Amino acid sequence: MSTETTNRAAGAGTTPDVETVRALIAEHNNWGRWGADDQVGTLNHVTPAHLVEAAATIRTGKRFSLALPFDADGPQRGGFGRFNPVHLMFRDGGDIATGTIVDDFYGGKDRHCRGTDDLIIMPLQSGTQWDALAHILFDGTMYNGYQPTAVTSKGATRNDIAQAADRIAGRGVLLDLPRFKGVDALADGYAISSADLDGCAASQDVEVRPGDFVLIRTGQLQARRGAWGDYAGGSAPGMGLDSVPWVARNEIAGLATDTWGMEVLPNETPDVFQPLHCVFLVGMGLYVGEIFDLETLAGDCAADGRYEFFFCAPPLPFSRAVGSPVNPMAIK
Amino acid sequence: MSTETTNRAAGAGTTPDVETVRALIAEHNNWGRWGADDQVGTLNHVTPAHLVEAAATIRTGKRFSLALPFDADGPQRGGFGRFNPVHLMFRDGGDIATGTIVDDFYGGKDRHCRGTDDLIIMPLQSGTQWDALAHILFDGTMYNGYQPTAVTSKGATRNDIAQAADRIAGRGVLLDLPRFKGVDALADGYAISSADLDGCAASQDVEVRPGDFVLIRTGQLQARRGAWGDYAGGSAPGMGLDSVPWVARNEIAGLATDTWGMEVLPNETPDVFQPLHCVFLVGMGLYVGEIFDLETLAGDCAADGRYEFFFCAPPLPFSRAVGSPVNPMAIK
Amino acid sequence: MSTETTNRAAGAGTTPDVETVRALIAEHNNWGRWGADDQVGTLNHVTPAHLVEAAATIRTGKRFSLALPFDADGPQRGGFGRFNPVHLMFRDGGDIATGTIVDDFYGGKDRHCRGTDDLIIMPLQSGTQWDALAHILFDGTMYNGYQPTAVTSKGATRNDIAQAADRIAGRGVLLDLPRFKGVDALADGYAISSADLDGCAASQDVEVRPGDFVLIRTGQLQARRGAWGDYAGGSAPGMGLDSVPWVARNEIAGLATDTWGMEVLPNETPDVFQPLHCVFLVGMGLYVGEIFDLETLAGDCAADGRYEFFFCAPPLPFSRAVGSPVNPMAIK
Amino acid sequence: MSTETTNRAAGAGTTPDVETVRALIAEHNNWGRWGADDQVGTLNHVTPAHLVEAAATIRTGKRFSLALPFDADGPQRGGFGRFNPVHLMFRDGGDIATGTIVDDFYGGKDRHCRGTDDLIIMPLQSGTQWDALAHILFDGTMYNGYQPTAVTSKGATRNDIAQAADRIAGRGVLLDLPRFKGVDALADGYAISSADLDGCAASQDVEVRPGDFVLIRTGQLQARRGAWGDYAGGSAPGMGLDSVPWVARNEIAGLATDTWGMEVLPNETPDVFQPLHCVFLVGMGLYVGEIFDLETLAGDCAADGRYEFFFCAPPLPFSRAVGSPVNPMAIK
Repeated sequence: MSTETTNRAAGAGTTPDVETVRALIAEHNNWGRWGADDQVGTLNHVTPAHLVEAAATIRTGKRFSLALPFDADGPQRGGFGRFNPVHLMFRDGGDIATGTIVDDFYGGKDRHCRGTDDLIIMPLQSGTQWDALAHILFDGTMYNGYQPTAVTSKGATRNDIAQAADRIAGRGVLLDLPRFKGVDALADGYAISSADLDGCAASQDVEVRPGDFVLIRTGQLQARRGAWGDYAGGSAPGMGLDSVPWVARNEIAGLATDTWGMEVLPNETPDVFQPLHCVFLVGMGLYVGEIFDLETLAGDCAADGRYEFFFCAPPLPFSRAVGSPVNPMAIK
Repeated sequence: MSTETTNRAAGAGTTPDVETVRALIAEHNNWGRWGADDQVGTLNHVTPAHLVEAAATIRTGKRFSLALPFDADGPQRGGFGRFNPVHLMFRDGGDIATGTIVDDFYGGKDRHCRGTDDLIIMPLQSGTQWDALAHILFDGTMYNGYQPTAVTSKGATRNDIAQAADRIAGRGVLLDLPRFKGVDALADGYAISSADLDGCAASQDVEVRPGDFVLIRTGQLQARRGAWGDYAGGSAPGMGLDSVPWVARNEIAGLATDTWGMEVLPNETPDVFQPLHCVFLVGMGLYVGEIFDLETLAGDCAADGRYEFFFCAPPLPFSRAVGSPVNPMAIK
Repeated sequence: MSTETTNRAAGAGTTPDVETVRALIAEHNNWGRWGADDQVGTLNHVTPAHLVEAAATIRTGKRFSLALPFDADGPQRGGFGRFNPVHLMFRDGGDIATGTIVDDFYGGKDRHCRGTDDLIIMPLQSGTQWDALAHILFDGTMYNGYQPTAVTSKGATRNDIAQAADRIAGRGVLLDLPRFKGVDALADGYAISSADLDGCAASQDVEVRPGDFVLIRTGQLQARRGAWGDYAGGSAPGMGLDSVPWVARNEIAGLATDTWGMEVLPNETPDVFQPLHCVFLVGMGLYVGEIFDLETLAGDCAADGRYEFFFCAPPLPFSRAVGSPVNPMAIK
Repeated sequence: MSTETTNRAAGAGTTPDVETVRALIAEHNNWGRWGADDQVGTLNHVTPAHLVEAAATIRTGKRFSLALPFDADGPQRGGFGRFNPVHLMFRDGGDIATGTIVDDFYGGKDRHCRGTDDLIIMPLQSGTQWDALAHILFDGTMYNGYQPTAVTSKGATRNDIAQAADRIAGRGVLLDLPRFKGVDALADGYAISSADLDGCAASQDVEVRPGDFVLIRTGQLQARRGAWGDYAGGSAPGMGLDSVPWVARNEIAGLATDTWGMEVLPNETPDVFQPLHCVFLVGMGLYVGEIFDLETLAGDCAADGRYEFFFCAPPLPFSRAVGSPVNPMAIK
């Protein structure tokens, strides 16, 4: 069934364009699949039974945080209006060491306890993050047919990140593409195909199942760490149009990469920016994560040969938000 | 051993004061217990074996988010410099519906994909949150003897929240005190004692074990929800000085309540503001959570009689931060 | 010519409604008056000759700042998404007193100079402020016929505050209505009429001329100072529909009051929120200032009997912004 | 009297060091000159008589805004924790064009007026700005001997910018050094001397008088405009140690340049960062402005040969702040 579309997307002699994207969305469309009011898309694949099975992957008690530190040294360089988190103290150790806190906090009567306090200013997609389904629209609609008027200056009244507050936990699977291919990192511009994903899973002896959260390592984050350059928005390896059938067929709940934008850059068609965001988020209602730091986890998986784990990555339920920073946990 | 201190703290005829707090810190002190360089305190109680055991609590696949929504309707009223999260869109559906996004985002050449984007400004302790160990100091030091000079205007170089990035997952236990006592909510000013905690656990037929994350419901959040009044900083039920021996004896990894400030307010001594913060965070290195929304979870526990669950509540690893918002997940 | 409209607006037996506002806008319309591309409206009344004449009002060298302090004690209470300015230090005296600044700022090699630094987060209309002409639209357009699509998520491409960067200086006139009427403050809900303004000017022996910036004191700011209550958005004295002919006839450049919203509240018609904002900003292109602190100036004017002065109140030229905080200066 | 110091500062055979700075501060010290409680330093030079004289410089009614636009295209690149202003709309034209504003603002009952609203996040010294006297300390004190404990996490209790709320207006003088020297811009690293300043004033036939605000053009801002590179903090022309006697002798009220940091960079001594900030702000209590855009004004002064004007540049009175953005006005 998907052959034709796949050919259109990536076949010899056909250049992908906006119609390619429309066709992929039409073919792999989940609108209405979980009801006309659904706002969480593929997270519906995570069933109670899936969670119970996922718990069985916890065997050694090893824990991995998959978040980059959130700070001024992050990868943003101002593109797309996104900047690295700005962290500010409004009570600090200087106030305590010098004693000014007594006047400034207690109004002059000391009560001995000393506190520090801080504040963050951050674009919600400036670091390790989930996209809400309200993050992307195509041809005038978002997932499940909701209109752009559902995202006002006050935020999204449909498909916001808070819908996923209790949804993002289950079985995780890491697909380590550079290890599979014997390289340090996929090249910038490399488009990951369905065959790549099947081959990688086979080589790792791991099965991808419905409801899984699939973490795809390209190696780019590690290659750029601390010297980010154009990591945020520049050329990158990533998911290709040809990966769509694989994603759809496996009925995964979520997909995350170690890159800024999940999909290959430059995009495979100049006509559509981030075409897979349109297919995945708008068409499928797929939860997409970006800037996941998979290095330590990948090393451990390579060492013990086990690429499955318990995955728990709850977004912060910002009401009406279209994304959220996250500290994803993998537990083996 | 703890009798004397307990008597001092809450015994007839003795009024707690700053010396009471000093004595409790001295008696229940964990400085050096996990090394001179330790920065995570009681999170050391969470061992790999603990995590594997905790996984076995996942039996039905039910999931609970324990976070309040992060938005302008939260409980903060400006006290202590804390305000509710300010959420702002910097690309929204209006730009998409009207088409202005083509000029403003694509510079005039349309590439069809439509994105929305947003930003948050928030005190890190304005909603459901973890305190970092760097949040509290007493008599000039924080947990493990670190100095106030370790918290500059740029944040904490010791005991910051990022230290706990991969640490906060394990077995969770809910202690539902109002259900135990047959009331809707504990009264403002009620100081929870060690006997209360033992009695509640016994009545729920749940055992508290080393490494557990103990969630203590007072009912106050539910009583105030949406009409917060002075929830943030005013009178409240909460942990009393007499609860210290229980907390220490059980070697729990973390403690969270459904109140703004974890401990009883007004405090049991006018001499020390939030004395248990001093004992728990500074003396023990105990991780403390606040403003946890335990209502739905509590209802489920009452229904099935099972008060234990898998708990995963990773803070966002803000570098040098003294707290973090969190969306704690309980999975049964 | 204006009689009919005035009667309609405030006459016996006629209740103002949205048609009243439409009629006032139609009658006092300045669209195209200064060209199809004009973006500053009545600021065009300020001519070079006006400025030279205005300079002659400086006779004693007395200076007055007409801004409220910008801080957490300001009048905002969260309504309309506006909050008081949040001021944060990111280098402070604690870092200097304790010496941590050497590591945190100089990377360990001291260079002796010590700096402090800070940051502000503020709604642009949270304190003493100018409205940009892009702040208000009515019947789908702003001043000079510009469309709402000219104000995207990135701000205004027409009528933004930066257009007025070099425009707001000239002759200022204070009209002290409570002194004229022999009261401390006009009552909440009092609608200032054209007759009030003429009477006040006559009693003060001051002439209002084209290009003037007219500051209208109601006394409400002084009555509420420091105990703001519902000053921001609640009942207030202010300009009434009947004041429109006076404002139009005098060809003033700008108008500012000591109230939150310039016009009387509750509004004179329940059908239109802030109807004079529609008439003044949209119809006339009149610059409107709010939350001006006129107390000290008013006292001085009463003392010396001179109600004219040099007025210099440049907005900060935030590109594409729809308002700006300002520290207006009056110099006599 | 100043010869020795001048020699020490810039003379042949002597390398300036921290002692040079100490000597300059000792020699040109204004502590106590205007009372032990003074917090505005050289702004005391602006007398009522000075203001009246300054008014006489308004002869043609020409107005000049000396501020750079405050926006994302400004000169900051993140150094020193400073970034360009972040401007965000929280009600915009998209809400109006699509009609969502009726629900989101009026709660469903339309009241016809349409408003837009916005917010700024900005370091107070990220654009055209005044330094408060609390911005700089040296050898443990700020101007007039105040201690670093006067600048807590809540800001400055002494020498904050709000002290100058009604103080910054008077006679302005432009010294156009590149025109004087026949170049487009002074070279990066060029240290302006007292002789340069005297020569420039003489060539322009303008006298500098007590209480003046002196604006010094180097040409660097124009050379870098829109392609800022390392304008913020990199090499630059600017005031040299040898300029100190000129500044002191003329009893000026304030000094501003078109550069990021007022003084020459690299600094004349590696031992002290921004040594003139220490001399001017700490020793003299001199108000210093930076990133002033002097181009249009300079062109006009060259055209009419008149380098004096009325200058009005009130800072926003942020309580306890150590700096303020400003839109300085020059009126001729």
